[in-house]
This record gives sequence, C-alpha cells and structure tokens, in this order.
Amino acid sequence: MKKMRMQKSPVYLNLEDYEMTGEPIINQVRRLQDISGIFKNEQAFKEIDQEQLAYTVQAWMPVPEKTPGGLFFGVSTIYPGKVGNEYFMTKGHFHSELDRAEFYWGIQGRGALILMDHNRRVWAEEVYPGSLHYIGGHIAHRLANTGEKNLIVGACWPSDAGHNYEEIAINGFSGRLVEQDGEPVLIETF
Amino acid sequence: MKKMRMQKSPVYLNLEDYEMTGEPIINQVRRLQDISGIFKNEQAFKEIDQEQLAYTVQAWMPVPEKTPGGLFFGVSTIYPGKVGNEYFMTKGHFHSELDRAEFYWGIQGRGALILMDHNRRVWAEEVYPGSLHYIGGHIAHRLANTGEKNLIVGACWPSDAGHNYEEIAINGFSGRLVEQDGEPVLIETF
Repeated sequence: MKKMRMQKSPVYLNLEDYEMTGEPIINQVRRLQDISGIFKNEQAFKEIDQEQLAYTVQAWMPVPEKTPGGLFFGVSTIYPGKVGNEYFMTKGHFHSELDRAEFYWGIQGRGALILMDHNRRVWAEEVYPGSLHYIGGHIAHRLANTGEKNLIVGACWPSDAGHNYEEIAINGFSGRLVEQDGEPVLIETF
Repeated sequence: MKKMRMQKSPVYLNLEDYEMTGEPIINQVRRLQDISGIFKNEQAFKEIDQEQLAYTVQAWMPVPEKTPGGLFFGVSTIYPGKVGNEYFMTKGHFHSELDRAEFYWGIQGRGALILMDHNRRVWAEEVYPGSLHYIGGHIAHRLANTGEKNLIVGACWPSDAGHNYEEIAINGFSGRLVEQDGEPVLIETF
C-alpha cells in the first residue's frame, strides 16, 4: 500500500490581480505601435508615445495549439487611456475555428466587451469585477478600458480555437466605443 | 449613426466566494445519501446524518449540452467532513468525450484534486486559493475537502465534454485520500 504526498500544480493565480506565476506561462505585450490602425483618429494616435503599453496577455497553454478538446487559461490587462475620444482596446478577433466559444470575467477595473456577429451586428457588455461573459461561437470580441485604472479580465478558451485577427484588421468592427459627456457610448459605424 | 448603451451580462460572479447570480444558473445539491458507496468505511458512513450536505455545484450553461465548441462555467463547494478517516469528496468522473479537458482553480479553503488516468495511475494536486489546475483529456477527477471550512473551486469545461460517472461508480479510483497523523495522504488501493 503505497502512500503519496500531494503535488503542487505548476501554475499559481493571484486571485487579487490575476497575476499568473509558474511554468510555462506565455507573456504577450502590446504597445501602441503594435496596434496602429485600429483607432479612428490617426492624428491623435501619432501624438501619443508609441512605446506606451496598450495591453498585456498572460496565458497558461498546457497543450499545443490546435489540440482538440484542450483548454487554455489567460489574463488580459488593458491599460487606461484614449486615442482622441476612443478608449484603449485590444485588436479583437474571431476564432479561426469559428464555432469555438470563450469565457471572460472581470477582475479589476471597468471596461467593455465589444462583440460583433458575422452579419456585423455589434453590441457591448459592461465589464466590472465579477461580470461573467459568455462569448458564443462566430462572435468577434475585443476589450476596451473605460476606467482610470488597469482593466484585468480572466479568460478560458478551447486550445483549438485559434485567432483570426485578419478579418478585423481589414474590416474593423462596425462600432466604436467612445467617450461622450464623460460616459462610454458605442457608436455604430457600419 | 446609432448610439448604444452597454448591456449587462446576465450572470454575476461574486469574486470573494464565487456565488453566481443571474439567469440561467443551474444548482445541484449532493447530500451524503446521494453519494453512498464512494467511501471505504461503510459503517462510519451509516452513522452520519444522511441529510448532511456533501457538495453543491452551480453552473452557467449558456448553450445546450453536447454543443460543439461551447463552454460551461461552474463553481463547486465541498463541505468539510470525514467518513472514518476519508475526507468528504465528490463522486468523480471521466468526461464522456474522453479527450475533453477542464480547468479548476481554488477560491477558498483547502483540498485535493484527485486524478486518475486510464491505466488507473492515481495522483493528487493540492487545492488552495489561487491554485490553478489543468485536467487533461482522459483523466478522471474528483475534489476532496481536507480543511475545516468549505472548499470552493471555480471550473470551466467544454459543453460537449459530458460526464461519465459509471466507470468510477463501478471501479472507483485506485487511491483514497485519508487523514493520517493530521495530514492528508493519498493511499494507493488498486
């Protein structure tokens, strides 16, 4: 009768700020220079320090991408700021495997999850600590920070989802989240 | 140019205790009488109030079970207690679609994630606030509470994973998590 001690999982998640530590964690950094072209006001964009952090992503990907049935776990941090009246945001993407879903949940800060279906219908959900968001298949998604502090969002998605950034890079979303009278408003742009 | 307000997600997650509120949330309750047969010491089991709560599961299942590409989000609460020297635990299962993975992460309390592969090799990972656990495909999993307070664990899994409880109901796990000298120890049983 063999006795065994419990093992430790290789990854630890700080529940306050969702910083992930352990191995193997992937760290992505996106500065403003990495996301040129997604904001409407190109002049305002040029006037901002291009080295400024726009967002970071940490992820634990325990199996290779495209593994059927697997899952990835991640944390996105979107920094506060605006380009003209448009809030800092992520590039946004559809999944390459179009029917793959994703969960997001707000940890810190305030923001918006901007969603668009394949008919280019656009809408947005408010993101705040404890808001839980189901992003169904065939829905493009991007996060915007509408607050003064970092927006931190947890995420879980299938390892065979993939990212299709191209469609958004070419056609954008059909709405922009801008500040009007101090409030975030989603403006349909088609 | 249409202006839109942001919507609220239908589900809110209390980040302190992971209580989920909103619609539609599924609530499952398992009392001791619902999990008879999983503990070794049958005499000790009979002496405990059968109405006592063993564990509860809350889940947001935004799409029907078996939907390809979808995801579910849930919270398991395992109550503290022992049957003889064996800790209160969940029934445990493989996924019906064997290759489907799952993430668990500890929120409150202390416990163990007991894991077994298809060759009946068994091991356990320590669960505590912030511990993040990847349960790969083909791995049976169950949670046990080794502490004095509720063990609360977050979870995300594919909507087409399904639950195969039968194999565990018939053959059990090849290890039992028991208290020895005040410490949890996994005893291989084959």
